[in-house]
Amino acid sequence: MQDRAADAIAELTRTLPTGRLLTDPDVLASYRHDRAPDLPAGTPAAVVRARTTGEVQTVMRTAHRHRVPVVPRGAGAGLHGGSNAIDGGIVLSVEHMTSVLDVDPVDRLCTVEPGIMNLALKQQLAVDGLWYPPDPASMAFCSIGGNVATNAGGLCCVKYGVTRDWVAGLEVVMADGTLVTTGAKTIKSVAGYDLTSLFVGSEGTLGVVTRAILRVRPLPPPASTLVAFFDSLADAGTAVAAICAGEPPALCEIMDRSTIGAVNDFQRMDLDTDAAALLLIQSDLAGPARSEHVTAIEAACNANGASYIARTDDPDEGEALLQARRMALPAVEQRGVALLEDVGVPRSRVPALIEATERIAAERGIEIYSYGHAGDGNMHPTLCWAADDADEHARSMLAFDDILTAALELGGTTTGEHGVGLLKDGWLEREVGPASLAVQRQIKQALDPEGILNPGKMALGARAPFAAAGDRTAAV
Amino acid sequence: MQDRAADAIAELTRTLPTGRLLTDPDVLASYRHDRAPDLPAGTPAAVVRARTTGEVQTVMRTAHRHRVPVVPRGAGAGLHGGSNAIDGGIVLSVEHMTSVLDVDPVDRLCTVEPGIMNLALKQQLAVDGLWYPPDPASMAFCSIGGNVATNAGGLCCVKYGVTRDWVAGLEVVMADGTLVTTGAKTIKSVAGYDLTSLFVGSEGTLGVVTRAILRVRPLPPPASTLVAFFDSLADAGTAVAAICAGEPPALCEIMDRSTIGAVNDFQRMDLDTDAAALLLIQSDLAGPARSEHVTAIEAACNANGASYIARTDDPDEGEALLQARRMALPAVEQRGVALLEDVGVPRSRVPALIEATERIAAERGIEIYSYGHAGDGNMHPTLCWAADDADEHARSMLAFDDILTAALELGGTTTGEHGVGLLKDGWLEREVGPASLAVQRQIKQALDPEGILNPGKMALGARAPFAAAGDRTAAV
Repeated sequence: MQDRAADAIAELTRTLPTGRLLTDPDVLASYRHDRAPDLPAGTPAAVVRARTTGEVQTVMRTAHRHRVPVVPRGAGAGLHGGSNAIDGGIVLSVEHMTSVLDVDPVDRLCTVEPGIMNLALKQQLAVDGLWYPPDPASMAFCSIGGNVATNAGGLCCVKYGVTRDWVAGLEVVMADGTLVTTGAKTIKSVAGYDLTSLFVGSEGTLGVVTRAILRVRPLPPPASTLVAFFDSLADAGTAVAAICAGEPPALCEIMDRSTIGAVNDFQRMDLDTDAAALLLIQSDLAGPARSEHVTAIEAACNANGASYIARTDDPDEGEALLQARRMALPAVEQRGVALLEDVGVPRSRVPALIEATERIAAERGIEIYSYGHAGDGNMHPTLCWAADDADEHARSMLAFDDILTAALELGGTTTGEHGVGLLKDGWLEREVGPASLAVQRQIKQALDPEGILNPGKMALGARAPFAAAGDRTAAV
Repeated sequence: MQDRAADAIAELTRTLPTGRLLTDPDVLASYRHDRAPDLPAGTPAAVVRARTTGEVQTVMRTAHRHRVPVVPRGAGAGLHGGSNAIDGGIVLSVEHMTSVLDVDPVDRLCTVEPGIMNLALKQQLAVDGLWYPPDPASMAFCSIGGNVATNAGGLCCVKYGVTRDWVAGLEVVMADGTLVTTGAKTIKSVAGYDLTSLFVGSEGTLGVVTRAILRVRPLPPPASTLVAFFDSLADAGTAVAAICAGEPPALCEIMDRSTIGAVNDFQRMDLDTDAAALLLIQSDLAGPARSEHVTAIEAACNANGASYIARTDDPDEGEALLQARRMALPAVEQRGVALLEDVGVPRSRVPALIEATERIAAERGIEIYSYGHAGDGNMHPTLCWAADDADEHARSMLAFDDILTAALELGGTTTGEHGVGLLKDGWLEREVGPASLAVQRQIKQALDPEGILNPGKMALGARAPFAAAGDRTAAV
C-alpha cells in the first residue's frame, strides 16, 4: 500500500490548493486517534484538511483510483475509535468546513458544513431564536459531521430524539468521489430509499458528509430543574417510569451511589453520599404548564420514595445542579484511567442494569460508576483502573464484557449513542445477528467496493492495517 | 420465465401447507392491482397467502432458486401501484398474518404481524390505553405491513410524525429467504447501519416484512376541533404558519375552494362555498393546556383574516366537522375518475402550490381539487376527468406532470406519503438526481441480486414484465 499511498499523495499535492495536505510528523501524530483510550491507531501518510466539497471529491477520487484508505474525521471527539487513523492511509478532516450556509426560520431548516461545532451552531441559531436540540456532552468540541456520522445522542433525547431525527438531508461524497444528495426540505417525503438515515450513524464507512440540512425548532425557555435523592435504586427506577409516563421531561439523568461519591469528593457539592441514586430532571415547557409539569415530576418522585428533593426555576441554580451530572466523568477520571460504557436498555430495565453493574464490579473487584440518561435507557457505566495496574486493567476489560453481556440479556444494545467504531466491533454480530451483519456488509461492499472508506471500523471488514497491537494509544 | 414459474409453483405446492397457494383465475385476477387507477398490472401465476414467517421464507427461497418475481402484498390499499402484480410472477400476501404478538405498556412497544389492519391495531391497543399514531386515511383497510413498506403518513404527522418514526425494529425475509432482524427495543441504539429505516419505505423491493416492533404511546384524550374559513389562500397559509409556529396541532388540514364546493354538493354540509380555503385543526393536549391551545389557534386564524370560525370540544361534533375533509376524495369521485396527487412542499409553500395548481387547472382546462395536510406541506391535488373523455384524460395527465414539476420547483417532493410505485417512477431520478438513484440501485442490486423482489417498481430496474400496455386496470 505504501507505493499506492505515495502516488496518491504526490497527485494530491499537485491537485489540491497549497496548505491542504499535511505530512509533518507532528501533525500526523495529532490525527492518529479520537478520544477513546486504549484502542489501536495507525499513523497516516497524510492529513488533508479540506475546505470545499470539491476538495473532498478530489481526495476521494484520487484515493479511490490508488486504493488508499481514507478515514473521514470531524473534530476527533469520538469515544469508540471510529476516526482512529490507519497506517499509511489518509485522514480527511472537514474541521475547516464550518459555515452555516442557510437558516430558514419559516420552514425550520438550516444548512451547514460538517466541521461546525455543535455548540457553535447552537449559538448561531440562538440569535434567531432557533434551536438544534441534539446535545452530546461533548457539544463544545464535537462537530456536526461527527454527530451525523455517529448518530450522536445527548441529554435531551428523552424529549427531542437523536441526531437522525433532526437531519432532513445530506450532501455526501461517495468512495469514488461521486457527489450524492439525500433527503428533502419537506416534512414528509417517500421518494426512494431513506439514504439519509443510512448515512447517519454509518461512521464514515459509506461516504463523507460535506453538507447537512438540519431541522431546527424554536428555542425553548430556560428550563426548570429538579434533583431528587433515593435510598433505593428500584425506587429511582419506578420514579423515572412515572415521570416519563407523562409529559416528557427535557432531560432525566441518573447517578448511582458510587458516582455521587466521586463527584462529591471531586467538587465538594454536599451531595447525600448515602443515597442509592440521584435523579436530575428538567422541564422546558412554556408558560404555566411548566410549573404544573415540575409539580407532577416532584409528585412522582415523592410517591416513589424520594428522600430529598430540590427544585428551582432559576437557570443558574439549575445549571449548578446539573454540574453534578456533568462532573461525573471528570470526577471518575481523578481516580484512574476511565473507560465509558455506552449500553442501552429498555427504560424499565435501567435499575436492573445498575444492579447488574454493581454485581459485576464486586465480582471483578473493580470500581464501576453508573450514570446516564435514565429517561431513554442509555447508561454510561464507567470503568476505572489505576494506570499502572495491569491486573486491574485486565479485570476491568473482563467487566467491560460482562456489562455488555448484561445489557444484551436485558434486551438492550451495546451502544446507545457513541457508535461501534473499534471498541464494540467484536460485539456487533452478537447484538444484531450474523444475517443482519451480512446485510450491512453487502451494503458496504456495494457502495465502497474497494473498501477504502474507514476500513476495519464497525465490524464491516478485517481490522487492518492499524499499527501493531503493542502500539496502542492512551486516552487523549 | 413461464417454465421457471411453473417449477416454482409445483415445488411450493408440495412444500407449503394445503390452501396457501392459489391459482384459481378469479383469485389471481383479484390480486392483480392495488387501488391506483390507470396503471399497468400483470396477472400472477400464483398467489400465496402465507401464515407464518417460515412460509414466507419457503416462498422466497423457492422463488429465488427459480428466479421468479415475487410481489409482496399487504391489504392492496396502495395508491401508486406498488403491489401491482407481474405477469407470471407470485403475489405473496401476508393478509392472514394478523396477530398482535406482544404489547409492552411499560416500555411502550408492541410487536405485530404485518397483515393486521392499522385501525384494528389501534382498537386493540386502546384497550390498554395505548396508541399507535400513524393514521393514513385508509386506516380501516390498510395493513401495518403496507404502512411500513410505504412509510405511510396520515393526518397526525404534523404532530406525531410518519410510520418510520414509530418503527423500532423489523423482522424481514430477504430475497433469498434469509431471515434478518433489525432495530432494537431501546429508545437509542447506534449498533450498525439503520436497516430499519432502509426497509421502511422500500416498497417490498428489499425484503418481506414478517414482523414489526412498533412504538406506542398513551392514548391522547379526544381532540378539540376548530374549523376556519378564509377569503384568501395566502391568509390561510400565514394562519397555518402561525399555528404551527407554536405548540403543534394534532392535525392541520386544508381544502381549497373547488374541494369545498365538491364536498358541499356531495354532502350538503352548508359550507361557505365562497371561501378560498378552509382549515381544520385539532388539539389533543390534556387538561387546561387544551383550551389555551385552541384559543391560540383561534387567535392565529383571526389575526390572519379568517372570515368564520367554529370550534368545539365535543368529539362527535369534531368528527362531524372532520367529515368535510374525509369526504373530499369521495366527493371528487362523484364527478369522474379521480387521481390523487401526493406532492409535498416546505410548509410555507403550500399556498404557492395551491395557486400553481389553480393555474395548471385553468391552463389545461380541467378540474383539480386541492386539499391535504397543510401542517406538514403534503398536499393531494386531485385530478378528475370524465371516464369516457380521452381528451380530458390526456389533458389531466399533462396537468399531473405540471403539478409534479411545480412541486419540485417549490423545493418539494413528488411523493409525500404514497410512495413511488409505478405512478412516480418516471419522476424519481428527476427529484433525487442520477447519483442518488444510482446508490439506491446499488443497494437493491446488493440485497436482491437476482432482482426478484417487486421488480420494476420504484425506478429500480426495467419495468417488465407487466401485462401489455393496453391492458391497464381501472380504479378499483
